[in-house]
Amino acid sequence: MKFVTFQKKDGSIRAGWIENDHFVVDMHEASNGVLPKDMLSFLENHSFFMKYLSSELKFSVKNKGLYLLKEVELKAPLPNPKSFRDFYAFEEHVKTARENRGLEMIPEWYEIPVFYFSNHLAIKGPNERITRPKKCEWLDYELEVACVIGKEGRDIKAEHADQYIFGYCILNDWSARDFQREEMKVGLGPAKGKDFATSIGPFIVTKDEMEEYRVENGYDLTMRAKVNEVLLSEGNMKDIYYSFGEMIERASKGVTLYPGEIIGSGTVGSGCILELGTDVHRWLVPGDEVELEITSLGKLTNTIINE
Amino acid sequence: MKFVTFQKKDGSIRAGWIENDHFVVDMHEASNGVLPKDMLSFLENHSFFMKYLSSELKFSVKNKGLYLLKEVELKAPLPNPKSFRDFYAFEEHVKTARENRGLEMIPEWYEIPVFYFSNHLAIKGPNERITRPKKCEWLDYELEVACVIGKEGRDIKAEHADQYIFGYCILNDWSARDFQREEMKVGLGPAKGKDFATSIGPFIVTKDEMEEYRVENGYDLTMRAKVNEVLLSEGNMKDIYYSFGEMIERASKGVTLYPGEIIGSGTVGSGCILELGTDVHRWLVPGDEVELEITSLGKLTNTIINE
Repeated sequence: MKFVTFQKKDGSIRAGWIENDHFVVDMHEASNGVLPKDMLSFLENHSFFMKYLSSELKFSVKNKGLYLLKEVELKAPLPNPKSFRDFYAFEEHVKTARENRGLEMIPEWYEIPVFYFSNHLAIKGPNERITRPKKCEWLDYELEVACVIGKEGRDIKAEHADQYIFGYCILNDWSARDFQREEMKVGLGPAKGKDFATSIGPFIVTKDEMEEYRVENGYDLTMRAKVNEVLLSEGNMKDIYYSFGEMIERASKGVTLYPGEIIGSGTVGSGCILELGTDVHRWLVPGDEVELEITSLGKLTNTIINE
Repeated sequence: MKFVTFQKKDGSIRAGWIENDHFVVDMHEASNGVLPKDMLSFLENHSFFMKYLSSELKFSVKNKGLYLLKEVELKAPLPNPKSFRDFYAFEEHVKTARENRGLEMIPEWYEIPVFYFSNHLAIKGPNERITRPKKCEWLDYELEVACVIGKEGRDIKAEHADQYIFGYCILNDWSARDFQREEMKVGLGPAKGKDFATSIGPFIVTKDEMEEYRVENGYDLTMRAKVNEVLLSEGNMKDIYYSFGEMIERASKGVTLYPGEIIGSGTVGSGCILELGTDVHRWLVPGDEVELEITSLGKLTNTIINE
């Protein structure tokens, strides 16, 4: 299933899913109030709700809570994740981004999957405009895949991690490279370089829909980024060095993970301007349209505006 | 006022405040349900609730919702902050911690107040036991003061920041120095070194109660840490290099701050074992009791246990 959050013409915002490509279902309305209005509440009880869905609802969807997709506005599928961790799991991205700054690869990168926490209170959705922060001159996109945690757990082993994943979505970790470069010299990692916006969407795809693409360390999914319709980045999720299982093992070591937390993969190789170099493409400016596309996860498009 | 969250003998957890040193008030019960049950809901509407408090409630507290402090269990005053940013605002801490590793001071530190996001889903309260993570051999405390955001705002100037602060509390940013040292080589800052626990409490003190201590860049508050009753750290909040106003200006640049977000100051000079050196005190081990004390903000005590 493809879960979405959407705004109806009457202004109300509801969680639901895509039905037959052209419709969305308001899960609360279609279930006569059994299913919740928002995605986080659905995730927090999703094993119960998914059972309900598969057993009771199929027949009633056509009658109630069904809307034309083109008549609603899709929002971030999970507008209020409980947290957002971003990893650094693609080797090519780390290597190339460092090479471009004349730096060697970090040996420790091969020993542990490393992440940072970012601002889970600045989540944007499909087609939402992204404000270039004041004084930022080096605005960049980052092409990533994210997983959404569906089940509470702690000290989860990589080989058991799959059952804690509810689904996947595209993630764009917008980056102000000039801010990031300055602050990272102090050693605490990126913060203002990343905290102004992170886009996710257009939907969260449940694992079962992605089975056909499964490979040893993840999924065989083509990942592409276009700026103003020009293809700039192309990679594949199967080239990931650390699997989501390994990332979840790392994140949950001595720490409880909760439904509704989001984990980003880090940028796929070639998946940002920092890596491509500004001789290939200038930094983003207001008016630019950035489209990320990943096999089975749809397209996530945003336009840059001025503060 | 000193706001608290506490568990009653019947197991229920409620928000309220300290009354006459020896009592706590259950704000929901004392207000016949007008005030909420939890601190985050109180913060989200605190300007309305504070007006209600000052105008209507004073007389009724003695009758209803009053409990002996010694008969309840204090929890983290805000057990579920919306986020947790930790700054690095005391010069002595940064200098000494680097000197101990043979490193020079970072020039950029003087240019911008830098922070990282940590795990706001692992907040601990007074007297709560802190689990030393598996394989951690270098467990440390960090003596900090934190402010709690009370009002939504964006692009807040330092000189206007005070009105966005609801109050202050003690914060202990527990640190696994061995984990931190390893992961920070990869350049994304601390994550597993800090994500397992952060203690706050015992209460959140509103700004008005701290007026007598106010100095130019903050407050004149003695900060002390004891391990097993031995004084190890002593500093003062007035030695802070970046004020909370400057930290809030930085955090809110291009980003909306919400009520219930927590901002830590970073460690006061001498406020952790990393700075003191292990010739002064060994790393923490299970059984150790760590007590942080700050003028007007009370004492925050935690004991270390094994995973």
